This record gives sequence, structure tokens and C-alpha cells, in this order.
Amino acid sequence: MASPQRIESAMREAIRQGQGRGVGTRTRLAAALDYAVTPGGARIRPTILMSVAMACGDDRPALTDAGAVALELIHCASLVHDDLPMFDDADLRRGKPALHRAFSQPIALLAGDSLIVMAFEVLARAGAADPGRALAMIGVLGKRTGMPFGICAGQGWESEEVIDLSAYHQAKTGALFIAATQMGALAAGQESEPWEELGARIGEAFQVADDLRDALCDEATLGKPAGQDDLHGRPNAVRELGVRGAVARLDDILAGAISSIPKCPGEGQLAQMVRAYASRLVPAAARDRLLMPGE
Amino acid sequence: MASPQRIESAMREAIRQGQGRGVGTRTRLAAALDYAVTPGGARIRPTILMSVAMACGDDRPALTDAGAVALELIHCASLVHDDLPMFDDADLRRGKPALHRAFSQPIALLAGDSLIVMAFEVLARAGAADPGRALAMIGVLGKRTGMPFGICAGQGWESEEVIDLSAYHQAKTGALFIAATQMGALAAGQESEPWEELGARIGEAFQVADDLRDALCDEATLGKPAGQDDLHGRPNAVRELGVRGAVARLDDILAGAISSIPKCPGEGQLAQMVRAYASRLVPAAARDRLLMPGE
Repeated sequence: MASPQRIESAMREAIRQGQGRGVGTRTRLAAALDYAVTPGGARIRPTILMSVAMACGDDRPALTDAGAVALELIHCASLVHDDLPMFDDADLRRGKPALHRAFSQPIALLAGDSLIVMAFEVLARAGAADPGRALAMIGVLGKRTGMPFGICAGQGWESEEVIDLSAYHQAKTGALFIAATQMGALAAGQESEPWEELGARIGEAFQVADDLRDALCDEATLGKPAGQDDLHGRPNAVRELGVRGAVARLDDILAGAISSIPKCPGEGQLAQMVRAYASRLVPAAARDRLLMPGE
Repeated sequence: MASPQRIESAMREAIRQGQGRGVGTRTRLAAALDYAVTPGGARIRPTILMSVAMACGDDRPALTDAGAVALELIHCASLVHDDLPMFDDADLRRGKPALHRAFSQPIALLAGDSLIVMAFEVLARAGAADPGRALAMIGVLGKRTGMPFGICAGQGWESEEVIDLSAYHQAKTGALFIAATQMGALAAGQESEPWEELGARIGEAFQVADDLRDALCDEATLGKPAGQDDLHGRPNAVRELGVRGAVARLDDILAGAISSIPKCPGEGQLAQMVRAYASRLVPAAARDRLLMPGE
């Protein structure tokens, strides 16, 4: 299994490099870089990336680490930008004030920009020993972050009068999970294509689980405002299928994810990881509701 | 000399790729990508990059093109983000409404993010034939864009109570000119280090010229609001040295730039290019003022 210590240590080193030495380390922007990535939360995307790389042999661990860090930096950047008043106007993130509340909007925008850039820099730095693999990882990360298929495109759909729901979900939530499985495979010298479906299905599962959490949990449990989808009129699996239907859908998706895992040395362990996520993904509140009569 | 047609054609192709095919091409974000990079203005950074690559032999023209595009995309992204109300609150850019005025703030933020990502993607795509060179170019572009040495760091200084003027200028204006000379050299298979000074000096010259324009030109000539430095209390060479002093300083810097050009096949032509910029950089209004008695 991928280890949280391995991810955190690689994250700390990347932030330290981004903060630099000397006078620049004392700036508010340098402090904001650290604030944006701590505390870490579940680090679910880098964990998946690392698990896939390990299932494929992990023969270039420095590239795996760089991939995991790069992906998490992009994810953190998207949270910082999405929390801004012009989007979600969130006060809280991971149980503490959102970055633009703790610092300022300009610093939040620049921290997000800097984290995006840092993601690609981390891969460029780690790639010297195998530029071909690193470049392929950069290509995948770029595709799943920017336009027209990445999380930027996904967020962009929220500015359209008519939303293409399938494109919206795939880009907004699915993209970084596809990046996770594909970059993990690339880091270990495998082709990326066979790993797209696993990432896409994990992304779908995560979206449904998020909808369940958003519908059932309170602010204290989430560490961020609850009921945001209802508030913003965003599509939501619980509204469409009910709690019981959404949980059944989640189980279906995860079964599909497991059967999509490509042949590789660590295939069995990877299936186990997905199963472990399955039980963690469904919030206890949802399982409780399923046991109640009449739901 | 680098040709404007070569740069524009490479820019168009990158934007077309970013807009994608199918439903996503009709989104506001897709339209904003094109809006952000047109009309092109002087394309001074990609022109310098291409000129250096050509002076060094330009043996991988696809990499040179990708480098030029990537650098200009980063520059355009920085203009879009800097124009937002939380920074300069600019109404005009290149003679038309700033992107957040023509679209919206969310679209402007996402367009900037997407252009940043696209810059790295363009290099990853073009690099397959020579991953080592492409990766080095990505490293330089990242360093000169993000933290702690890039334009993000430069913009970040404006949020500090005490500004380190030297770090501010080097990062805010100089960084992308250093990227231009270094990426141009790398695209043609040369080491990047010997090219740092030329980029830094061109950047300094550009900053002084910008100060002259900001102090002397009106809004119609600039295509953006004039007198912004005075308004925002930013450091300015004209305020420190007067118009005559600033023009003399500009001439000094450009002489230094020319003498810093590393040995290469196209050394003479490159010196000519810098001289050509020198005469274009100083606005006519400033030269006119120098001819008036008493200034």
C-alpha cells in the first residue's frame, strides 16, 4: 500500500522548494503555499496514484513521488480557487478558514497559480533520470487539469446556461482520478490507456459518495459548508436516485472499477484497495439511513 | 529573424487544441481562451525566444514553436489574472475590454488557469522527439512563472507591507525574459545558464521603457489605463531618474545586453535584434521630450 508518510514527506519537500530560501520565504505567498496543502485530508488522489505505481512495480520511486505530489498540488490549487467568493464563496476548508479568508483574495489567487506551476516543476525536476516518462506524466496531468477535458473545463461548465452533465461530471470530478491511475502507471513504465477506466470509475464513485455526504452530513463532519449542491442547483445523485438508490449505484460503480483493473503484478492488492475505499466512501450516516424502515 | 507568422500560426494551433472538438468548443471558457491571446500585441517574449533559438541553429523547430507559444500563454494568463478587480481592476487590455469585463470574473480566473496549464501541455506534446530538451524547457518555464522566482512571486510582493524592490522587479518583469532567452537556447540544444544575463538585461530595459510609456503616454496609445504606477504607488524609474535619466539608463542596459550575448552562430544578428528593440522600446513621446530645452 501507498504510505501516508511517503506522500507527506514528498509534499513537504515540494513546498519547501516552492518557498525558496532567503527573503522570499517570509512572504505571505510563501506561507500561503503551506497553508493550502495542510492539513492533508485523505490525500486520496496521490494514494491512488502511488498504489497503481506500486502495483506496476514502482521501479522509479522518485517519479512516483513527484507524480503523487504534482497531482495533489493541482487538487489543492483547485480547492483554493474554487473557494473564492466568485465561485463557492466558502468560509471553511478542511476545518479551518478558507485560504482567501486567512490571507486575502489576491494571495489566494496567486497561491493557486503557484501550486499549478509547481506541479509541473516537480515533475520536470524528478524527470531527469527518465525524461520520456516524466514528459508523458506532464502530458496526462495537463490534459486532466486544463481545457477541454480537465478540472478547469469542469468548473467552466458552471458558467454555462445549459450544462452538459456528462462532460461536467467527467471533467470536474473524474479528471484527476483518471490522472491518478494513468500517472501511476506511467511512473512505473506502463502504458497509460488501459488505466483510464479504473480512474474514471473511481471518480464516479467519489462523486456519488460526495453527493451522499453533502446531502446527509453536517458542517462539523464535513469541515466545509453542507448542502452546497442544493444551494447552487448543481446535479446530485441523491436528488436523482434517493439515498438507497445512490448507495446501490456506488456499489455498482466500485464493482465495475475492480473488474477494470488491468493485468499487473499487484492486481489483487489494488482490488483490495478499491474495496477498502468502498467501505470508507459511504458515510456512516448513509448506511444508517439504509437500515431505517421506509427509506 | 523570428517571424510573426510563425508565432501566430503556432498560437492558433495551441488555442484550437485547448478549445477541443464537439460540445466543449461552444463554451464561454473556450471562447475566452481565444479572447485572451488576441490581438497579439508585440509578442515580444516569444520573438526573443525564437530569435535566440535561431541564433543557436534552431535544429528542432517544433520545440522552438512550442517554447514560444508556452511562454506567450503564460504571459497572457498573467495579464488576465492581473487585470482582475482584486489586483489592477483594469477595464481595458490591448484596446478592448479586459477579459473579466467581456466575460466574467469566474471565466477570467479559469481562462488564466487553463492558459497556464496549456503552456506546459504544449511543451509536453512537442517534446516526444526530444524529451530531455522539452523537460529542461518545462523546468525553466516553471521556475520563471511560479514561486519563489517567477512572475507569481513578483505579483505576490505587491501584497507585502515592505517590498524587496530588487526581488520584485526581477520576478515581476525580468523572469519571463530570462525564460525567453534560456528556453530559446534549450530548444536548440544549448545550455541555458549562459543565456540568463541577456534575458535579465532585456527585462530590465523593458521595465524602464514601460515606466517611460506609463509616465508619458495617454490611454489611447497604451490600449490600457495610463498612470497606473503612480496610482498604485509602485516603483518607477521615471520618478527616480526623470525622463532624461531613464532614457540614459535604458541605453546603458541595452549596451550591456548586447555585450552579454554568448558565442553562437547568429550572435551578430541577435545583437541587431536587441538594437532594433532599443529604438522601438523608447516611446516617441520620450524622445520628443529629450529634444525640448529644460527637461
